[in-house]
Order: sequence, then C-alpha cells, then structure tokens
Amino acid sequence: MARIVMKFGGTSMGGIDRIRAVAERVKGEVDKGNDVAVIVSAMAGETDRLVQFCREASSLYDPREYDVVVASGEQVSSGLLAIMLQSMGVQARSWMGWQLPIRTSEAHASARIDDIDADILCKAIEGGNVAVIPGFQGMTEEGRVATLGRGGSDTSAVAIAAAMKADRCDIYTDVDGVYTTDPRIVPRARKLAKITYEEMLELASVGAKVLQTRSVGLAMKCQVPLQVLSSFEDKPGTMIVDEQDIEDSEMEKQLITGIAYDKNEAKVTLTSVADKPGSVSAIFTPLAEANVNVDMIVQNFARETGNTDVTFTVPSDDLAKSLDVLAKAKDEIGYREIAHDTNVCKVSVVGVGMRSHAGVAATMFQTLADRGINIMAITTSEIKVSVLIEEDYTELAVRVLHTAYGLDAEDDAA
Amino acid sequence: MARIVMKFGGTSMGGIDRIRAVAERVKGEVDKGNDVAVIVSAMAGETDRLVQFCREASSLYDPREYDVVVASGEQVSSGLLAIMLQSMGVQARSWMGWQLPIRTSEAHASARIDDIDADILCKAIEGGNVAVIPGFQGMTEEGRVATLGRGGSDTSAVAIAAAMKADRCDIYTDVDGVYTTDPRIVPRARKLAKITYEEMLELASVGAKVLQTRSVGLAMKCQVPLQVLSSFEDKPGTMIVDEQDIEDSEMEKQLITGIAYDKNEAKVTLTSVADKPGSVSAIFTPLAEANVNVDMIVQNFARETGNTDVTFTVPSDDLAKSLDVLAKAKDEIGYREIAHDTNVCKVSVVGVGMRSHAGVAATMFQTLADRGINIMAITTSEIKVSVLIEEDYTELAVRVLHTAYGLDAEDDAA
Repeated sequence: MARIVMKFGGTSMGGIDRIRAVAERVKGEVDKGNDVAVIVSAMAGETDRLVQFCREASSLYDPREYDVVVASGEQVSSGLLAIMLQSMGVQARSWMGWQLPIRTSEAHASARIDDIDADILCKAIEGGNVAVIPGFQGMTEEGRVATLGRGGSDTSAVAIAAAMKADRCDIYTDVDGVYTTDPRIVPRARKLAKITYEEMLELASVGAKVLQTRSVGLAMKCQVPLQVLSSFEDKPGTMIVDEQDIEDSEMEKQLITGIAYDKNEAKVTLTSVADKPGSVSAIFTPLAEANVNVDMIVQNFARETGNTDVTFTVPSDDLAKSLDVLAKAKDEIGYREIAHDTNVCKVSVVGVGMRSHAGVAATMFQTLADRGINIMAITTSEIKVSVLIEEDYTELAVRVLHTAYGLDAEDDAA
Repeated sequence: MARIVMKFGGTSMGGIDRIRAVAERVKGEVDKGNDVAVIVSAMAGETDRLVQFCREASSLYDPREYDVVVASGEQVSSGLLAIMLQSMGVQARSWMGWQLPIRTSEAHASARIDDIDADILCKAIEGGNVAVIPGFQGMTEEGRVATLGRGGSDTSAVAIAAAMKADRCDIYTDVDGVYTTDPRIVPRARKLAKITYEEMLELASVGAKVLQTRSVGLAMKCQVPLQVLSSFEDKPGTMIVDEQDIEDSEMEKQLITGIAYDKNEAKVTLTSVADKPGSVSAIFTPLAEANVNVDMIVQNFARETGNTDVTFTVPSDDLAKSLDVLAKAKDEIGYREIAHDTNVCKVSVVGVGMRSHAGVAATMFQTLADRGINIMAITTSEIKVSVLIEEDYTELAVRVLHTAYGLDAEDDAA
C-alpha cells in the first residue's frame, strides 16, 4: 500500500466525460489499496476565460482580486471530481487551499507556497477518503486567496506530496512521458523510463514544456519521486528521480538524455559599448530591476578601438520592455546602437553523463557546423550545453543532434 | 451620509459592460458620500452552467460539493466588480463568505444564514472602502462552503444590511419596481412608490417574482427598508417599508395594492373519501412528510352518502411525487378515485386596506362571475384573497380585477 498524489491538468479535466475518466483512474489506485490525494487544474480553457474577464475589467487589475476570480476555475473542477468519485462509490471530498490551509507568500498572481498543514489531509486519507484539492492556489497570511502563476498546479502537487510524505507524485498530462526530444520534430524520439531531477530541471528551463520548472526544483529539493504519464492511456510514464536511484548501467548507456529547444528568445545587441569598468553592470542592472531574465551573454572585444559589442538574449515577451529600459539607460551605458532579432532559437543538449565525458560540446558544434548552422551564442552548465541559432534551422538542428548523440529509437514504434 | 447595501442580480452582472455600468452606479452612491457594501449574483447564465455540470457528474450529487462548485459563480463576479471599481478610482475589495464569516446552517444547497460578523465590513466601509460580497453563500460551522438556494442573493443582501445596520438595502434588478400587477398582462399597471413588507410577502408568495419570499420575510423581521429598482435606468423604484412608515393618506387611497397570479399550481381531487375521524389527516400527513407544500383545500360533503370529495392544490413540480404518495396511502385514506389537473391558475388580490374594508372578496367573486369565470377553490389571509381558476382565463381575470379595484393608471404612460 502506498501513499500517492495524483495531479491532473486542464486537458485531462476538459469536460464531464474526461473528469469521469480521471475519476476512474483515481478509483484504480484506490482499488489497489493506495491512499490517494488528487490535485486538479481548472477545466481546459477556463483559466484563460477568467483571465480575459479580469483584463477586460481593467488592464491594471489588482492581483488580489484577479486571484479571487481565477482561483474559482480549480474550485469548480475539485467539486466536480469529488461528486464523480462519490458516484463511483469512492469516498471523496474537496478541500480548498484556505480550508487546509496551504499558506502562500503575499505575491499575488505568482505566489510561493510557504507551508502546508497536511494534518487534515493525512487524517482524511487514512480514514479512507480521497482528498481532492484545487491546484494553483492557497491563502496568504492575511487570509486572502493567492494563486501561484500559470502552470502552478504541478507545484501544488509536489508541495502537497512533500507535506504528506507521499511515496510518489504522479503528474497526469496529455503526453505519456518525457521524450529524448519533441516527437513532433523527431518521430524517432524515445520515451525515457527514468530521468534525474537535475536533467529534468535543465530540460524544463530550456523549453521542454512537460513540467513547470518550479515544480521540478521543489521535487528535487524535497526528494519527491515524480512520474509524468498520460491521462488518456494506461501505461507507465517517465519517472523523475534522484541520480542515485538510477542504476549505473542505465546511466552510462547515454551521454545525453534529452534535447530541448526554445523559440521564445530574442537577441539584443548593443554596439560599441565603451570598454570601461561598470559599463556591463550599467546594462544588466536596470534589466534586472525591470525583472527581465537575461540568459546568454556574449562580449566581442575590438582590440583596435577599445570598444565592445555586447549580445544577450531575453524572453521574447520581455523584448519591448528591455528595449525601453536600455534606451533610457543609453547615456549611462554609453553604446552606439541597439539591434534586436526575434528570429532565433536556443537549442540545448542535457545529460548528467556529460559530467564524466569530455567532447559533448565539441560534438554539438561540429554536428551543427557540418550542416552550415551558425552559432550565435553559447552557454553551458555542468550538465547542459545551449546554443543560439537562427530560428529557421531549429528542426534541422534538433534532428541532426538527436542522431549524433545516438538517441534515435531503433524503429518507429517508439 | 447614509450606509447603503446595494444588490445586483445576474442580469445586471451579465458581462463586462454591464459590470461596468454596475460599478458606475456604485460610484454614484460613493460620490454622494455614502458608505456602501455591494452584494452580487453570478453573471447571468453562470449558475445554470455550474448546476448543469453537477447534474452531469451525478444525478445524486453531494450537496456539499455542489455548493463548492456553484458558489464559484458569485466569487468571480465579486472579484470582477472590485477590479472595475478600482479602475474608476473607487477603493474596493471583495470578501467571500468564509472570510467574514457569514455563518450558515448545515443544510447545504438551501442553507439558512445564522449569523454574520459585520465587524470587518463595518471597519472596511468606515475606512472608505466599498465592500463587495458574493451573494448566495456562506460557511457552515464545520468550515465548508454552503449556498442558500436559488435566488438566495436577495436574502444575503438583506441579512448583511441587517448585520451592518444599514439605512437602506437597494435591490437592483431588471424591472424598475413593484407594479400593481404584471405589466406584460396589464399595460395600465402602475408602479407602486411604496408597499408594506406584509403585502410584498404575500405578493411574493403568490407568484410575483420580483423578490425572493425569504428575503422579504427577513427584511420585515429585521426592519430593513428595502428598495427595488432598475439597474438599467436611473429612477426611483419601489420602497418596501413598515406599515407605520406609510402615511394614512397614501394607504387609504387603495383598497388593493397588487394582483398576482401563479400558473405553477396543480389541483388534486380525491373522490368519496370516507367521512370519518382521521381521514383528512391521513391525506395531508404523508404529503407533509414528503415535503409537499399543500396550499388551497376544499371539502365537498355529500350528505346523502356520507362521503366527501377533497380537493387541494400543490406546486406543479411536486405533482408526480404527491400522486405517488397518495397512491401508496390509498388504503389508509380510503378514497375511490384520484384526479388531477394542471390547467389551473391561482389569482390573488393583496392589500392591507382590506383589513378595514369589507367587501373585497365579494367584489372579486362578482367580477369574475360577470365574465363567466368559475372559481374552483378559495383561500384567504388577513390581507389577501386567492382563487383557483381555469388557467386559460388567467389574463382576463387579472385585467378585469385590476380595473374593478381601481388600479388602472390614468393614461398609458404609467
């Protein structure tokens, strides 16, 4: 008998028939003798509808009231799932964030979970109830409803699993696991049986959309075993676990675990920045103050003139704000011109195997060069190499890298 | 400066543009220097949509979970109205039932308000805030969300007005006041400037749909001055007040204040009921136990046979249940046959003036007889006379009575 947290996203909850299928899935775990808590998202499209209402009411809406409005979507689906479970003879009831409570920070619309009192939940599930909890929300110290930001239900699920000391947190979604890369681009992409938290964290942060980055970070910190699986098919998904829980034999088979890409990047170049102390700081300090997340940074020195071109990437959504901030800081920074390009893509290869194997980056650069793909910027971590390329080459780059690292499935029946 | 509770129904909140108009109406009261609390219904159609979800999930839904689902409709509109008010420069925030709290009974889906802690609200509005409160809901002692039943937002508004000792509770709706009768049937119906609680209570309970009966009863008990007015037009509505707040001159002008009709009645007749002690009780006890509200009762003695026919009315919605109950109790009651008829209508004349004037009922019977309208049953209270007639005669009966009691407006520009 295990204690399991199950999380179902908006597509899984998209209509009464789908909620019925979710309830059957939950009943399956209960019938196996497991104690279950379920975290649900709003029905597909519902959050968008509610956000749109708020925007129409006022472009400068109060995030505290926005939270009151949008939190209702998950409230509805939790009540409906409880009703559906009861109709199948499964004892169930819903608990909203304020009823437990799930304590959050005061950062309305993008709050952080501070603390979850799991006593009520643990007692409920030990008493044979399935606990149904709306994801994405909690209550501030002040007693107001707060939401965690879009995609926050994954984080709710992991936080609740950690608080309940669950044996496993299953994230049901519209894909059946984590793949070596996007199967829409590479039909021979393989589903991974296991992946480490670190790899998943890197993949999520460089564009793989299967899990919210925050939720993976929290799972890693709290050592919650995560599973990503399909809510529409009954087969095992991908387990996301600690490195030591993966056998060496599994690990060493592959140097690279996955390849991700992110087209939502924009490249900004400042030309002829004076090469003097403080000029780089003058660029990035105002961007940080404007909450722009700068990613890749490249400096090109021109030894003759003593000037430098500085190139970096920002999320496309923040481009306008970034250009505005940089225009205002022009005198302080001292650059000649500002150029930008949204026709770029970041392609990343991720794998804990590269810690112990040299040559991963070299293979990447050579493979891309062989196809005439120009690299505009590079950034690396211990288990990741990312390059910025022209957006039109995205699919080609992903395919050739997938083959180069030996990730292609043996046949198409991946 | 007054303390005012304003309540807006679903039609008034039916979309962002209408919510903007509501916010402007609220701002108008704030600009006059009034302290304001606003009670809102769900956006038009929203509660129906949510109820439908619950029914599709299970025909035997848990009312506690149903309440979680349907309460979300008012939550959304309260957040949106707060956002809209803020965008107009009016300080506002929403408080949900559980945040105040509004304490209710445990009768989920049709709960009663037990107690409202108005401290938070009073402090908020004294501090210059408009308090926006979702109607129709509160929290049980156990800490679960409970709703008051359809139309419950009127009751929420009156209860909050009573708890806050408000000077007035304004109910904004899609009609501009209480009329002498339904203007769709009688174009010369007049809008009443004032009406007593008792008259409004009788009118509401015999079919006038402008206010929920419970809310009028509560306003009478707590002596909350009510006003019914249009959310779409800026003109005075109808004040519902205590009898002593209406001047004698106004009062004595009219014998009858209003005429209402209710087509949702069904007539049931049991023939040849044995005329023995306990036989009538044997009819109505099982109906009461089945929660059927029996209204008009007529007994016809047949002196020769010693038998009696018993006729009574029940709400049309309860007819099937009533026939079932009576069939099961046939042996105990001892009747020959059971007949029923849904082609009936109850027409009622209401007015406190009839306390001091004889002949109101006689005028009613004579007027109907002159047009050949047969009366099947009669019931009276101190300020009301109701008759049951064939449904096809409804409009004719209402029109001739409206004229007979001198209620017609002098010209069509009523």
